[in-house]
Amino acid sequence: MAEHIITFAGAPVPVHVATGTLVSEAAQLAGIDLQQPCGGQGRCGRCAVQVTAGDVRRRSTLRLSPDDVAAGYALACQSVIEGDVSITIPPQAGIERRLTTDRTAIEVTVPLGYSAAAQPMRRVTLTLSPPDTQDQTDDWSRLQTALRQQTGIGAFGISLPLLRRIGPILRAQNWAVTALIETDTWDRPTGAARIVDLWPGIIPDAAPLWGIAVDIGTTTVSLWLVDLLTGVVRAQVAEYNGQISRGEDVISRIIYSTKKSPLPNPLPGGEGALELRDLVLKTINTLLVTACKRVMADPASVVKATVAGNSTMIHLLLGIPCESIRLTPFVTTVNQTPVLPAAMVGLNIHPEASVDCLPGVASYVGADISAGVLSSGLDDAEAVTLFMDVGTNGEIVLGNREWLVTCACSAGPAFEGAGVQHGMRATEGAIEEIWINSDTYEPTYRVIGSAPGARARGVCGSGLIALLAELFLTGIIDRSGHFNLKLPTTRVRQGEHGDEYVIVWAAESQTGSDIVITRVDIDNLLRAKAAIYAGFSVLAEKVGMPLEMAEQVLIGGSFGKYINVEKAVEIGLLPDMPWDRFKFLGNTAARGAYLALLDRAARARITDIASRMTYIELTADNSFYDEFISALFLPHTDLSRFPTVQAALKKV
Amino acid sequence: MAEHIITFAGAPVPVHVATGTLVSEAAQLAGIDLQQPCGGQGRCGRCAVQVTAGDVRRRSTLRLSPDDVAAGYALACQSVIEGDVSITIPPQAGIERRLTTDRTAIEVTVPLGYSAAAQPMRRVTLTLSPPDTQDQTDDWSRLQTALRQQTGIGAFGISLPLLRRIGPILRAQNWAVTALIETDTWDRPTGAARIVDLWPGIIPDAAPLWGIAVDIGTTTVSLWLVDLLTGVVRAQVAEYNGQISRGEDVISRIIYSTKKSPLPNPLPGGEGALELRDLVLKTINTLLVTACKRVMADPASVVKATVAGNSTMIHLLLGIPCESIRLTPFVTTVNQTPVLPAAMVGLNIHPEASVDCLPGVASYVGADISAGVLSSGLDDAEAVTLFMDVGTNGEIVLGNREWLVTCACSAGPAFEGAGVQHGMRATEGAIEEIWINSDTYEPTYRVIGSAPGARARGVCGSGLIALLAELFLTGIIDRSGHFNLKLPTTRVRQGEHGDEYVIVWAAESQTGSDIVITRVDIDNLLRAKAAIYAGFSVLAEKVGMPLEMAEQVLIGGSFGKYINVEKAVEIGLLPDMPWDRFKFLGNTAARGAYLALLDRAARARITDIASRMTYIELTADNSFYDEFISALFLPHTDLSRFPTVQAALKKV
Repeated sequence: MAEHIITFAGAPVPVHVATGTLVSEAAQLAGIDLQQPCGGQGRCGRCAVQVTAGDVRRRSTLRLSPDDVAAGYALACQSVIEGDVSITIPPQAGIERRLTTDRTAIEVTVPLGYSAAAQPMRRVTLTLSPPDTQDQTDDWSRLQTALRQQTGIGAFGISLPLLRRIGPILRAQNWAVTALIETDTWDRPTGAARIVDLWPGIIPDAAPLWGIAVDIGTTTVSLWLVDLLTGVVRAQVAEYNGQISRGEDVISRIIYSTKKSPLPNPLPGGEGALELRDLVLKTINTLLVTACKRVMADPASVVKATVAGNSTMIHLLLGIPCESIRLTPFVTTVNQTPVLPAAMVGLNIHPEASVDCLPGVASYVGADISAGVLSSGLDDAEAVTLFMDVGTNGEIVLGNREWLVTCACSAGPAFEGAGVQHGMRATEGAIEEIWINSDTYEPTYRVIGSAPGARARGVCGSGLIALLAELFLTGIIDRSGHFNLKLPTTRVRQGEHGDEYVIVWAAESQTGSDIVITRVDIDNLLRAKAAIYAGFSVLAEKVGMPLEMAEQVLIGGSFGKYINVEKAVEIGLLPDMPWDRFKFLGNTAARGAYLALLDRAARARITDIASRMTYIELTADNSFYDEFISALFLPHTDLSRFPTVQAALKKV
Repeated sequence: MAEHIITFAGAPVPVHVATGTLVSEAAQLAGIDLQQPCGGQGRCGRCAVQVTAGDVRRRSTLRLSPDDVAAGYALACQSVIEGDVSITIPPQAGIERRLTTDRTAIEVTVPLGYSAAAQPMRRVTLTLSPPDTQDQTDDWSRLQTALRQQTGIGAFGISLPLLRRIGPILRAQNWAVTALIETDTWDRPTGAARIVDLWPGIIPDAAPLWGIAVDIGTTTVSLWLVDLLTGVVRAQVAEYNGQISRGEDVISRIIYSTKKSPLPNPLPGGEGALELRDLVLKTINTLLVTACKRVMADPASVVKATVAGNSTMIHLLLGIPCESIRLTPFVTTVNQTPVLPAAMVGLNIHPEASVDCLPGVASYVGADISAGVLSSGLDDAEAVTLFMDVGTNGEIVLGNREWLVTCACSAGPAFEGAGVQHGMRATEGAIEEIWINSDTYEPTYRVIGSAPGARARGVCGSGLIALLAELFLTGIIDRSGHFNLKLPTTRVRQGEHGDEYVIVWAAESQTGSDIVITRVDIDNLLRAKAAIYAGFSVLAEKVGMPLEMAEQVLIGGSFGKYINVEKAVEIGLLPDMPWDRFKFLGNTAARGAYLALLDRAARARITDIASRMTYIELTADNSFYDEFISALFLPHTDLSRFPTVQAALKKV
């Protein structure tokens, strides 16, 4: 057998190994301690190295992109030496960054060929001829005539508060003024325009004109501050929805909203509704101030807002009772709200700015999904595409430019850490990724937090998916989620709440007590993933095509942003498809709201999308329950649906 | 000479008189004391009697209508006996009533063929199919679909406050509801509709639907409560404009409106503007309560309002600064305001009722004139017509269905009693009609007030016109208004403020001091009447036709309601034309607002009228000053323009 010379950058001498030796074994010979948290199964990608001369045979490139491979990257535990090679071991931070980059959302870019004229807000500078006794036209007609001449638009609306101010404004700079006009709004016929504000003197085009795109998630509110003249997103800020303290999921919020109180209340539907409205307004208005500070903008100079969010969030924002969303037959009060002035909504932007809450489809498929579909491009795709947004709820859309079907899975917030004993949201101290060594059953994990060696407090959504997959692939739990108590490890044990696995011992945890995952936790996670997968199945069945025929899977939402697809497939949360069919789009709802803010055509497309989507009510669907029960196993009762998982299990 | 037998009803025996004897002389022979306050000149009409058998030769029928003559009425001082006659002397109250009736406004009648469908407010009863899991349409779409099916209207607007309430309302009576819709408003394109309110259950058509027509005069605010289903005016109420305490004319109000204060003020244009707005709102809202009480209506069930008023009144109502109305070049902020919700205006009717302030033409020709022209029918007349509305201001329109010109005379409020020492408004204690005996120079007058023998406090507008005419015709003053101090009467004297005539001696007055008219008062009245007549002249000159060619003169406004045309002609306030060309229309502004409330076509006509009227700014007109100077004489420098007055003077 031939011997090969392996040179590790930074190592004092090369090592000599036989053909067929793993790179990880060669590194060990060279005295290099490569991280292999998954136990050398090629699952974690943490042992990636870069081959700088010669080549290796890669048995698996899981967790490596084609670009990575082209750049010489290989997984040390999965790569076989068949010739002389030089190898560089990247700093661990570099690997982490690369792994993380793989999973981040696509960047926000200004749409190609963006024109400020495509969005309805325009500033028009005017120099009016002053009145005299030969021309005593009233101020408002005079202003309209000048606007008509400049824009070609026939008629303008105006609000009473602005009408009260125009006289002095027109005269302040000798009849030179700058008007802000909105050339159309979405509840008026085409061509209708209104004057939003008027300033004395000529304001140069260079002065910015701001808009905001807001996505109100049940958990997180995102706000993008956009320069409407260039289309550039100048600030992106996000914060927990202030309503969280009144309930983690939409159902709890709806129940809270009906809370009555003897206090005077300007809203119908309970004092709780008023409180929830104030809480989310406070969140948005705080984000607004933060975003504006970054670019030294005055919040009052924000002249337009688009808002995405699930139907409950939109109802609560506008103070519209939402109790019917929770009660059978689950209907909203309104899917397409009128465009409203900001002052009426309570946003601290320009009081007469239009607030356009984007249209939703149904109680559990809201504007966030309509906007998400737009930003995913699904509605214009040739290929049959599966779009999912797993946040606090799970919504799925299947379709292409010809047809769209959608449903909502009552997945519950298990993947956001609720209903799981040591579950938590993805904040400092949360375990976000985990590997279990298949020989020792010892875990390696990554904790969210800047400090090296930061201690864990709990496990967030992506960590729970990874944990479930690792427990399953290492045989710690079986296909139905039962623990194997016979394994040679003290980490699997009978606890207070039944069988459990100890992820972090008390001595190493931030809380000072063991961090565990219990049988009950696992059941909750299985129900959540089963609901989502059953949703996929029902949609595919409705349109009479196998799920695997979906040519791409687009994943949006804050949860999707951090999801580990490989592990999500292993537990049967996502369908078993080639890796390259999955794309992570990040906050598709906010991006859809951003596109609607920039472009009338995009805004019109969202309305079109909302009306095109056929909503399937799963609670009324006969096949859903069967699909759900079948999906309660790992990865599924029908293993043939998950061929790569089946293969991996055989290998283990 | 033949002798005739004259039988007076109620007199014990007939009297025998020769041909040529006046009826008044015969009455004296019969021992009957007929009232002849004008001294037997046929000017006052108070000696009217009824000839029940035979006939008399009427030398003059001034103050008698053709109907009166046909019914046998004759003026005793102007009727010559030429045969046997039987005469009834009507009770004085009867004569007064008839004289008063002559001068009252035309009655308010529901327009012929009135259909509730012609006005935009409709109640629609709906029974919706409830949602189920097969039909999860949102409430607002469901409601719109039902409305569309029932009305054929494609799209509806809704306000946020109502949207907040629809869910519970739809469910309260098992999806049976009654919707109030407005099928079009005047600032939206045709066909646009909105839902104004929604009630649970079916409300029968018999339940009333109310509207109000409001005329905001500088002095008086009138409100008509209208049943929109039948078109009937159910209550008419009027009250002094609460702003009077802050200035009697529009100029004083405008100045007051700019008064600043350090107090917080939601309106631009001074704290005075806020105060004036609140005052007029209080007046209207009080009238509303009064009118509603009369018919047991809930003010909140008033679902539509039309508002007429001069431009300053409309600006003040809406809190729009009006200072530019007062300053050259005299322009308004707005002539055609948007239709506004009642809650925003501050009217205590249904908060979402449309308040439609009718369009004006210029600073001093407002919505009251546009509405007045509509209700006069001038804009559709074949005949060239002169329309005038003399209230606190004096506005004139000349034209027909082909053309309309208009101007405003800065007459000032002299005819409302301001600028006249003992002038007062037409309230209790005001002398409203006066006659001076041409032999004795003693006056006879009628005082406003129910109590017989009520004492006078001052003289109101119609009284001042009569007084000026009587002073002139009896030679107490000459054509330039100078007193003849040589007359054998103590009533003409030199007073503190120059020459004067004593109308009421201190002993008989309510105030305990002499009520007089002075040279200064007369100058003010002459200026006021000259301004109005000069206005007529300029308008006629602009269109190149002699004023006398106007085929009818329509007189509107509260002042016009009580005007004595004969005397107004004698002083040169009105052009000298045959009596039957003058028509008194009463409150034409309120009637125009009423018609606009009832009928879209009428409302559209007002906008058309406002845009058709060519406004002549008199202050910028070269001929106005000359015409004004010429009109400062009684009746005018050019006596040939007043042939009947010339004839009367000759007779005297």
